[in-house]
Amino acid sequence: MTRPDTPFETSLLALAEQVEATLSELLDARPRDGEIARPGRLIEAMHYGALNGGKRLRPFLVMESARLFGGDEKTALRVGCALECLHSYSLVHDDLPAMDDDDLRRGKPTVHIAYDYATAILAGDSLLTYAFDIIAAPETDLPDSARIALVLELARAAGIGGMAGGQALDLAAEKAPPDEAGIILLQSMKTGALLRFACEAGAIIAGRPVEDRARIRSFGEVIGRAFQLADDLLDLTSDAITLGKAAGKDAAKGKGTLVALKGRDWAEVELTRLVDEAHEILAPYGRAAEPLAKAARFIAQRKN
Amino acid sequence: MTRPDTPFETSLLALAEQVEATLSELLDARPRDGEIARPGRLIEAMHYGALNGGKRLRPFLVMESARLFGGDEKTALRVGCALECLHSYSLVHDDLPAMDDDDLRRGKPTVHIAYDYATAILAGDSLLTYAFDIIAAPETDLPDSARIALVLELARAAGIGGMAGGQALDLAAEKAPPDEAGIILLQSMKTGALLRFACEAGAIIAGRPVEDRARIRSFGEVIGRAFQLADDLLDLTSDAITLGKAAGKDAAKGKGTLVALKGRDWAEVELTRLVDEAHEILAPYGRAAEPLAKAARFIAQRKN
Repeated sequence: MTRPDTPFETSLLALAEQVEATLSELLDARPRDGEIARPGRLIEAMHYGALNGGKRLRPFLVMESARLFGGDEKTALRVGCALECLHSYSLVHDDLPAMDDDDLRRGKPTVHIAYDYATAILAGDSLLTYAFDIIAAPETDLPDSARIALVLELARAAGIGGMAGGQALDLAAEKAPPDEAGIILLQSMKTGALLRFACEAGAIIAGRPVEDRARIRSFGEVIGRAFQLADDLLDLTSDAITLGKAAGKDAAKGKGTLVALKGRDWAEVELTRLVDEAHEILAPYGRAAEPLAKAARFIAQRKN
Repeated sequence: MTRPDTPFETSLLALAEQVEATLSELLDARPRDGEIARPGRLIEAMHYGALNGGKRLRPFLVMESARLFGGDEKTALRVGCALECLHSYSLVHDDLPAMDDDDLRRGKPTVHIAYDYATAILAGDSLLTYAFDIIAAPETDLPDSARIALVLELARAAGIGGMAGGQALDLAAEKAPPDEAGIILLQSMKTGALLRFACEAGAIIAGRPVEDRARIRSFGEVIGRAFQLADDLLDLTSDAITLGKAAGKDAAKGKGTLVALKGRDWAEVELTRLVDEAHEILAPYGRAAEPLAKAARFIAQRKN
């Protein structure tokens, strides 16, 4: 894992390589116990959807949170990869014509363009299912109580009351723009839930008590809000080449964002405030939390 | 649970009522711990997709297998409902235009017709995720080791190497009809995996050793083959009103089935042989296994 004085981008890139190597192994074609065969085209589409040059921010948060609390690095990497499978499923399904209808993701054709619509649905379904497989498998070297806690928290972060529910609110927002409270709820579910889980997962892996879980989860909450604000600013100001996907789509669809509602100046100030708040939450952990503190700054300042 | 001398259809109907009442409670709108809100339209679409008059054969198998091995009834009902959520997700996604493109399921408009395409994708995603939530939740009153075993087996039965993989093979079969071995593999993954899981889950719930898990799983394997054979015969001989969905679709798509390959006479004889084989597997359990024995006969003889 990362030494506290390593520049953030260097740490993130190094971690991304580890994540991709592990994801690649996990998405190997050989069936595991209890499986019969892994159809080639489906495994390929899952590979394509998951190994797409992502920043691997969520696994980074899992691993750095685990490191902070003294959790095992290899286990945190596996859990980070499970979370990345789940995140990838959400992108594959979100890009579908019936949803956001995006042809490009990080400058490459989306899964339903590179393969076909049906394969993209199944690849998403399989990545979602595989996230739970990875966590529950005996190779995730944790007490059963920790594995079951991770499964439950991930299911709640991803399901009706979390990410998928947020996505449903997002669809509704195209027809009836939500007010400020509605936007905050939507974003807290759609984007925030997985970031909160990523941070809390590290504390679960390390077997820490509820207070640590709650504190690091609240850090996840704050950086989730920063993440979404930065995203909304980028959607407004960036171009498709920098962003690697179509820009200005939210505005074109009339989707309410806090930036649209309260202005760019407010958003810039709020971003700075959120980074400060995130740093305050980490203060009791001192210098050991430096990588997470840098992650908060990176999230607010990222350009794509 | 069922007394050994109750007629099978009566037992199945009684169990279906219990399953629907429990599913309805589980799909209540109130958010659980770790959830923020449950969007109304999404919960409704999940309800619509899961509470659709299904026979609840899979929960029946979970519950009767648990009863046979002395597992707790209430726990088996919860796990059966989790499995039914997962089964329902597969139907919602299979019915989508990009997949089987079905407008009717059990005589009612499918989810993407009753709601919309995007909501159907999300309702399926959410039902799949919720299956793992239900099993991992503390209300599933089992040791952590049993809950994690159920999560792992379900993920493997449902994912790349199980049901979703079988669905991918099914898509490929439309372009290049598989040979006999290919059809058996496809069906063992697409239909068989969840039925094997249903039977094994009862033994896991009851905390039984590997030998019992393997024996009841092999019963699931055999009835899975009978189920598929009966399904293929029905697709060939039934009409849409009896079936509650479009009939003759597999044949029209040129999908290979064992019935098409080896003839209806062979299929009738094979069905009888499979029921006998299923009964032989249950023989060591004596009269206590009567409900499962009846289930095998019902699966082979069902008319829709």
